[in-house]
Amino acid sequence: MASPTRSTARRAPQVRSGAESAKVLPADVRHLHRTLLLSHLYKSEPKSRADLARATGLTRVTVSDVVADLLDRKLVEEVGTRPGTRVGKPATLVTVDYTSHALVCLDLSRETEFRGAITSLDGDILYRDAIELGDDRGDTAVTKVTQLAHRLIDNATVPVLGIGVGTPGIVSAEGTVRNAPNLGWRDLELARHLHDELHLPTYVANDADTAVLAESTFGAGDANGLMLVQIGLGVGAGILCDSHLLRGPEGTAGEIGHVRVSDEHIVCSCGRTGCLETYLAAPRLRERLAGLTPDRATHELERAGQQLGQVIAPVAQTLGVFDVALLGPEDLLTEPFLRATQEAVNATTSHFLDRNVTTRLSALGSDGVLHGAAAHVLAGELGLS
Amino acid sequence: MASPTRSTARRAPQVRSGAESAKVLPADVRHLHRTLLLSHLYKSEPKSRADLARATGLTRVTVSDVVADLLDRKLVEEVGTRPGTRVGKPATLVTVDYTSHALVCLDLSRETEFRGAITSLDGDILYRDAIELGDDRGDTAVTKVTQLAHRLIDNATVPVLGIGVGTPGIVSAEGTVRNAPNLGWRDLELARHLHDELHLPTYVANDADTAVLAESTFGAGDANGLMLVQIGLGVGAGILCDSHLLRGPEGTAGEIGHVRVSDEHIVCSCGRTGCLETYLAAPRLRERLAGLTPDRATHELERAGQQLGQVIAPVAQTLGVFDVALLGPEDLLTEPFLRATQEAVNATTSHFLDRNVTTRLSALGSDGVLHGAAAHVLAGELGLS
Repeated sequence: MASPTRSTARRAPQVRSGAESAKVLPADVRHLHRTLLLSHLYKSEPKSRADLARATGLTRVTVSDVVADLLDRKLVEEVGTRPGTRVGKPATLVTVDYTSHALVCLDLSRETEFRGAITSLDGDILYRDAIELGDDRGDTAVTKVTQLAHRLIDNATVPVLGIGVGTPGIVSAEGTVRNAPNLGWRDLELARHLHDELHLPTYVANDADTAVLAESTFGAGDANGLMLVQIGLGVGAGILCDSHLLRGPEGTAGEIGHVRVSDEHIVCSCGRTGCLETYLAAPRLRERLAGLTPDRATHELERAGQQLGQVIAPVAQTLGVFDVALLGPEDLLTEPFLRATQEAVNATTSHFLDRNVTTRLSALGSDGVLHGAAAHVLAGELGLS
Repeated sequence: MASPTRSTARRAPQVRSGAESAKVLPADVRHLHRTLLLSHLYKSEPKSRADLARATGLTRVTVSDVVADLLDRKLVEEVGTRPGTRVGKPATLVTVDYTSHALVCLDLSRETEFRGAITSLDGDILYRDAIELGDDRGDTAVTKVTQLAHRLIDNATVPVLGIGVGTPGIVSAEGTVRNAPNLGWRDLELARHLHDELHLPTYVANDADTAVLAESTFGAGDANGLMLVQIGLGVGAGILCDSHLLRGPEGTAGEIGHVRVSDEHIVCSCGRTGCLETYLAAPRLRERLAGLTPDRATHELERAGQQLGQVIAPVAQTLGVFDVALLGPEDLLTEPFLRATQEAVNATTSHFLDRNVTTRLSALGSDGVLHGAAAHVLAGELGLS
């Protein structure tokens, strides 16, 4: 899988997180050993130190040393023993202590609110919160992000390992939002800002890129070729090709919402007219549906699905990406919408080697971006992916 | 840059190539050292052994040892001395012996013929040959490939390092042509066949993938985001994104020619109708132009360019690939064609961060696929990329 440490704030003193108290440089061999052991323990059955030595190829002394360190940091815990051989003594088993630390996850891609969650280390959502966005854009929208993060941190009952954020727009590797017209952000150093305010490791990535990693990690997708189209405040795509998350220069990959689909003079948030987003962004599509009879509403949804399919088709065909997942509001991604999308794709693509481009709903449901944000923090802080 | 050893035949005893006579496993440290030294010498000024030790971080003993081996294999040569310091003796300079070995390169993407060339190790074309394709397809087309390769090898005056082939169609990592409808090939083990016939290391890759590597290696392209569209017997694309050559499952990435652009019932080689290729493949476009007045021919070329631009636009926009190079017959890729392509791209894409998608002629000219085939052999045999 592509390295998901797509956007990370500069490291600075960590005041809250117990896991960050020791000075560990990323390149440190000790850090690599820790990552290696954690990846063998994560979401697996409890293992003895001897099991871990066999599985990783590290010496027993090194394993014992690293496990002691992980116990000290409360990232793993001992959970009983397994009977030994006739001559050996029972082996103590260790496992990841999933509730020892919390992850703070933010989804900024929603139509009317910013959503947040606290998750355990295995990604289970333990607590939810949200803040109305209203007409706030620019600095006032940033203030709301910070408020929401603060509220979540205040509600955490264990140390917070880090903050993950999925945001609309073009996001640089440093977590700077280069351009998010729907939120009125341009060159906003969001990762740095949150880090300075909250003193926690912070990972900011594009919402669709976040979601596509979650889809391939927790969902049903194949990292070899997977496109996730996120419909919310805007429309964006996250693409995994050959297990690589496509970033493009300065993070510009994925801007599928700004492909022009019409000559109609409907102004987009990007300043141009006729972009896919002017039809398909959730607030725009809702506006079009308002007051329509059910029949005409269905027809309008079919038209939107067809437009999406026509844009997806050449991209998916040219990339050899046969699995396209759609993530967005359930009342919009309805059966007529999905059918029209697939029909447009069928009309515009060819089958190759008995493969054809299939569009489907994301397996993640409405928490896709939150789960992706969690995956980014786990990858960045613990090397898990 | 992505590893260009995209398709390689199984290694078997090398009967012709002096460079392959010793038993060197790819994973061998000695092989890595050899590759490291060659990459420092390739297309650079002559260097002393001391220069190489400084540049690579290898010890002088190791450098002397590897240089001795390379001299023995005739891959490098000594070219005089550089005056030493007052106390030192003059340093002997070594350089790559570019004419010590030949590369056999084949371009199977042409409309009416298979083209071949012998190049030196720096990619200079020393000898050309071609074989008429006529109506040959399937096995008889394979026979012509073998014939052409044989003729080239027979004309080599120095040992042949390897064979590189750029072919239309979907090509697996092992050099099997999974599907090349224009040549009537399906699951053709071309790399293995040529290797068995000619007893030389053989690299087979898709023609557009071959050309895009050459464009970024020898041409003007930026490996961060570069799409090369190859117009010949068919229409295909090679895409570099984040310095990674997109392959797709089983090599299916790049099939831009089979995006459907029309409801007209024009049957494509893939069996469907209305594919971009039915308008834009060189033989098809020539047929449409035959007998037209100059004005109407210009109009037809503009229409073809527009169709290409409409398919390129969503792909380039969504990938954040802003540099699109076109490779094909000069009499078709004319100014009206290129202008219409760019206009269609402009009409369908948005600018981001002051970048916009630009289409241009490939910097490689008509030898792009041949140069790419050479690049594949150099990468596979000598680790040069």
